[in-house]
Amino acid sequence: MSGFPADSVGLVAPQHQSFSEPLRLACGKTLNQFDLVYETYGTLNASRSNAVLVCHALSGHHHAAGYHNADDRKPGWWDACIGPGKPIDTNRFFVVSPNNLGGCHGSTGPGSINPRTGKSYGATFPVLSVEDWVHSQARLADTLGIDCWAAVVGGSLGGMQAIQWAISYPERVRHCVAIAAAPKLSAQNIAFNEVARQAIITDPDFHNGDYAAFGVIPKRGLMLARMVGHITYLSDDSMGEKFGRELRTDRLNYDFTSVEFQVESYLRYQGQEFSARFDANTYLLMTKALDYFDPAEAHGGDLTKALEHVRARFLVISFTTDWRFSPARSRELVNALMAANKPVSYLEIEAAQGHDAFLLPIPRYADALSGYMNRIEVDA
Amino acid sequence: MSGFPADSVGLVAPQHQSFSEPLRLACGKTLNQFDLVYETYGTLNASRSNAVLVCHALSGHHHAAGYHNADDRKPGWWDACIGPGKPIDTNRFFVVSPNNLGGCHGSTGPGSINPRTGKSYGATFPVLSVEDWVHSQARLADTLGIDCWAAVVGGSLGGMQAIQWAISYPERVRHCVAIAAAPKLSAQNIAFNEVARQAIITDPDFHNGDYAAFGVIPKRGLMLARMVGHITYLSDDSMGEKFGRELRTDRLNYDFTSVEFQVESYLRYQGQEFSARFDANTYLLMTKALDYFDPAEAHGGDLTKALEHVRARFLVISFTTDWRFSPARSRELVNALMAANKPVSYLEIEAAQGHDAFLLPIPRYADALSGYMNRIEVDA
Repeated sequence: MSGFPADSVGLVAPQHQSFSEPLRLACGKTLNQFDLVYETYGTLNASRSNAVLVCHALSGHHHAAGYHNADDRKPGWWDACIGPGKPIDTNRFFVVSPNNLGGCHGSTGPGSINPRTGKSYGATFPVLSVEDWVHSQARLADTLGIDCWAAVVGGSLGGMQAIQWAISYPERVRHCVAIAAAPKLSAQNIAFNEVARQAIITDPDFHNGDYAAFGVIPKRGLMLARMVGHITYLSDDSMGEKFGRELRTDRLNYDFTSVEFQVESYLRYQGQEFSARFDANTYLLMTKALDYFDPAEAHGGDLTKALEHVRARFLVISFTTDWRFSPARSRELVNALMAANKPVSYLEIEAAQGHDAFLLPIPRYADALSGYMNRIEVDA
Repeated sequence: MSGFPADSVGLVAPQHQSFSEPLRLACGKTLNQFDLVYETYGTLNASRSNAVLVCHALSGHHHAAGYHNADDRKPGWWDACIGPGKPIDTNRFFVVSPNNLGGCHGSTGPGSINPRTGKSYGATFPVLSVEDWVHSQARLADTLGIDCWAAVVGGSLGGMQAIQWAISYPERVRHCVAIAAAPKLSAQNIAFNEVARQAIITDPDFHNGDYAAFGVIPKRGLMLARMVGHITYLSDDSMGEKFGRELRTDRLNYDFTSVEFQVESYLRYQGQEFSARFDANTYLLMTKALDYFDPAEAHGGDLTKALEHVRARFLVISFTTDWRFSPARSRELVNALMAANKPVSYLEIEAAQGHDAFLLPIPRYADALSGYMNRIEVDA
């Protein structure tokens, strides 16, 4: 453990779990078997009352904290929040962090082999919903012997899973922490997702999702999808502060291929890097799950009614400059919870970083999350 | 004239003007000759003091008002504002509306024949700046015998041309009307433009801009560029009101090719329609001109200094829900004008439609523009 920071969970290794009981999906199809890859941090207590489920966002995965090997330069994606003494304190909690079904980091997804055909699912992998994820995660909880989560926690799409958990399994969630989320997508949110999908689908290398069979990947489409997404993760102000109109070189080139402004260079890099490491079919699945998420829908659009049987206490957190899922969207959830007489704490954090703020070590945010999590009762 | 509304300029026909004096461009290159196509509405008075220049935005053209033939179902793009008794009243004003240099509607642009090679310019057409447009429009004013515009008026990128006119030709502009514009692009603005450009440039049918030689057009790229652009033209609220989460059909399809939500259908239609009628190289040029626009830059970033020699009175208008060029961006211009002791009126119009509001017949907006324009003195 020597090289790692004292408040790190240190070296971690992913674990696998196979499920052979068929999983009926919202789309009507069934997955007869599936695997989930996940990581855990901390120790499950004797009464199994200290388990926290961390749900990841669109491009996330199971590696939320710590390091995979001694040479890793970057820890897991939420290392700022998970570790000994951190807001989700691994001295108290046993944290479970799965890669979502449909993912491209080890859980069964479009890149996996379909046992029925012996070939990778590719475009035939069924479209998933947030509910499907929650049900698959419930199977994982079963195998770990976790009857009830001390908390289900997530940011963005992860927050939506936390909300759905509280609705789908009221007896199995004591606390729901939904950060930078929304009870459903707006038309603008769907519109951005649709641009990302069209970028991927119209890439000639997409081959209707069967690009693997052609030995190519729709890099251009993925790059564009990520570029669009990335703009929505940052606030106008934070982009301005980070890049302004700073030029890449000291004079303008007046052509279309050169990079004139730093922000262009940054976006291209983000897009290219992402296109090399993320799967296009998984990206499509994730954006669709986002679009479809709307727990109120089954109750005639009445979110309060959807929350009627919830037993979890809620902590809802939003960030002032987040325009992807603005504070107003979090307040919709808070208002519905209050109307349903459910206990809810709401925090609007002053932060310049836009939607990405939920991933960052912002003192007031960390303190608030810490304070809430530390008040959750767990047996010694 | 029978079939047209009484407040329409009626049947109009584009006019052409050729220029053979070389035009030195900001990029360092020179256009030895060029054509501009333009329309005029109303009558130039004897003292030539009633001429108004209307500048178009990114995807605009010279056809701003009236109809090209008796069967036209749609009038010009700013017909709401130009006509007898309308805010830019053709009973008083002689309106000149050119298609910008580099355009794809008749003015010399990437699709035109390069007289030196006998082939279309394509990718070799020089990159243009807002200043270049203003200089080319000044040539047009010369040929029309217009020494001084009663007003130069424009929205969005058109507003930037109006601002640049007041700076480049202080003696030739009495009034500058800049609507839904900004004194320069933000990092986020540039980022959206960069996504649009990358969509076009990475389309395999782009062929480095020489798609014409291959008999194809980069439709996918143009479609994506327009989709991204379109999201930024509408406010989150107006998209919500227009589409909400309304489904296209009465049930979800759970696949990637079907259109689930109305907003997806709308965006795809907008993108496809645009890709069939607009030129990709022109789109690249327009977004670059937007990025480069920064009149303060030549004055060490001091906008007040850039406006020092301006003699025009300014009317600046912004719209509350415009997040592409928000009211704050218009206020930057207003503050700099005030600091430079220039006369300026500023109006922030309450409007739900976002950036697109500048094109729409919003009563308070129309009244304000009318009131301002009617107070401009012109000889009988």
